[in-house]
Amino acid sequence: MTLLHIDASADTAADSVSRRLTDLFATTWRARRPTAEHRYRDLCAAPVPPLTPAYTTLGRRVEREGFVPPDKVPALIAHAAEEHEWRLTRPLIDDLLAADTVLLGVPMYNFSVPASLKAWIDRVTFPGAYADPDTGESRLRDTRVVVVMARGGGYGPGTPREPYDFQTPYLRAYFGNLGVRGTHFVAAELTLAGLLPHLAGMEELADRSLDRAGAEVTALANG
Amino acid sequence: MTLLHIDASADTAADSVSRRLTDLFATTWRARRPTAEHRYRDLCAAPVPPLTPAYTTLGRRVEREGFVPPDKVPALIAHAAEEHEWRLTRPLIDDLLAADTVLLGVPMYNFSVPASLKAWIDRVTFPGAYADPDTGESRLRDTRVVVVMARGGGYGPGTPREPYDFQTPYLRAYFGNLGVRGTHFVAAELTLAGLLPHLAGMEELADRSLDRAGAEVTALANG
Repeated sequence: MTLLHIDASADTAADSVSRRLTDLFATTWRARRPTAEHRYRDLCAAPVPPLTPAYTTLGRRVEREGFVPPDKVPALIAHAAEEHEWRLTRPLIDDLLAADTVLLGVPMYNFSVPASLKAWIDRVTFPGAYADPDTGESRLRDTRVVVVMARGGGYGPGTPREPYDFQTPYLRAYFGNLGVRGTHFVAAELTLAGLLPHLAGMEELADRSLDRAGAEVTALANG
Repeated sequence: MTLLHIDASADTAADSVSRRLTDLFATTWRARRPTAEHRYRDLCAAPVPPLTPAYTTLGRRVEREGFVPPDKVPALIAHAAEEHEWRLTRPLIDDLLAADTVLLGVPMYNFSVPASLKAWIDRVTFPGAYADPDTGESRLRDTRVVVVMARGGGYGPGTPREPYDFQTPYLRAYFGNLGVRGTHFVAAELTLAGLLPHLAGMEELADRSLDRAGAEVTALANG
């Protein structure tokens, strides 16, 4: 069993609600699976490098060939810049393919996922990497993805700001398109209730949301 | 008059549909306004640096104070790391405030905006920066935003993949929330029709989409 645990918050652990919740998940998950592997990636401490023209050129060449598995990409590399891009990309692909469970800590930044997470998405989504070369089926069919979100305000179902939630529907569409069948979302809402004047009076709602998120995370980690 | 022109594609100019279209816009716009200023930012050649904990700490402190205009932020800076973050951020804010027209070249990466553009959004959206400190109204009310999109497939209204378009609704919500009242979207679709097997036979549709995008860009630049 392998857990791939990725944090995207720019806050340090003490301040970040999403980091505290993914830590709760990882600790709970590992306690039940003492021999399992825990791979950790902090997208703030070690940002995924931005794409360069060599990445897109290599990606297009691979795409033209159809379902090229990662092992056969090196044969299509044309020069050192593409080689460099592939060296930055392959470990991310391998981590994702190796994971039984992918745990993402995702604060809401400007209604969507942080740029740090989008940089991971843009790089790891290499053409052909997740398709079985024989059947064309997704190699991520049985991967479980757990997305732990933190939002300063309230964006849950039925709230006035629900149309501004570009985390949940986006990540559902993105992982669904990769072939992942099991994606779970947990949200701690109103995390800035103690800070922002227009959220005054919502502290209790925020506390309840955080408690519920913690319980959901624990249940998912034990499941 | 000032045009802020931002390209987010990881492709170089020759390969990038979005870059060719923003270039058409900028050339047309400048031809009509020979004395106007053209500020250019290439988010691939010079990526916006990722956020650090010092950015979010400073942002929270500023947020707690209410509508703090950029000129008063330095007085709230606590140490060198925050000073550094602010030095990276202020020029982006000033460029956005100075622009009459903001032109964004935005390819679709994994159904959404490229990480390079999200990095700009995450940094430039500093608390209080766009609110008039006296009235609380947006200082971007009269800014015109032109978003030029390129998509490998078809995601337009009525297509089966429309629910996967997380560019248009996202950027509309983001700029609307900043107070921008005039946001225009132009899309060149099916740009990979000549490359991908499952888009075979769509080359003519792609050509027509590109022609229409060019005409729309020209009309907007002349408007």
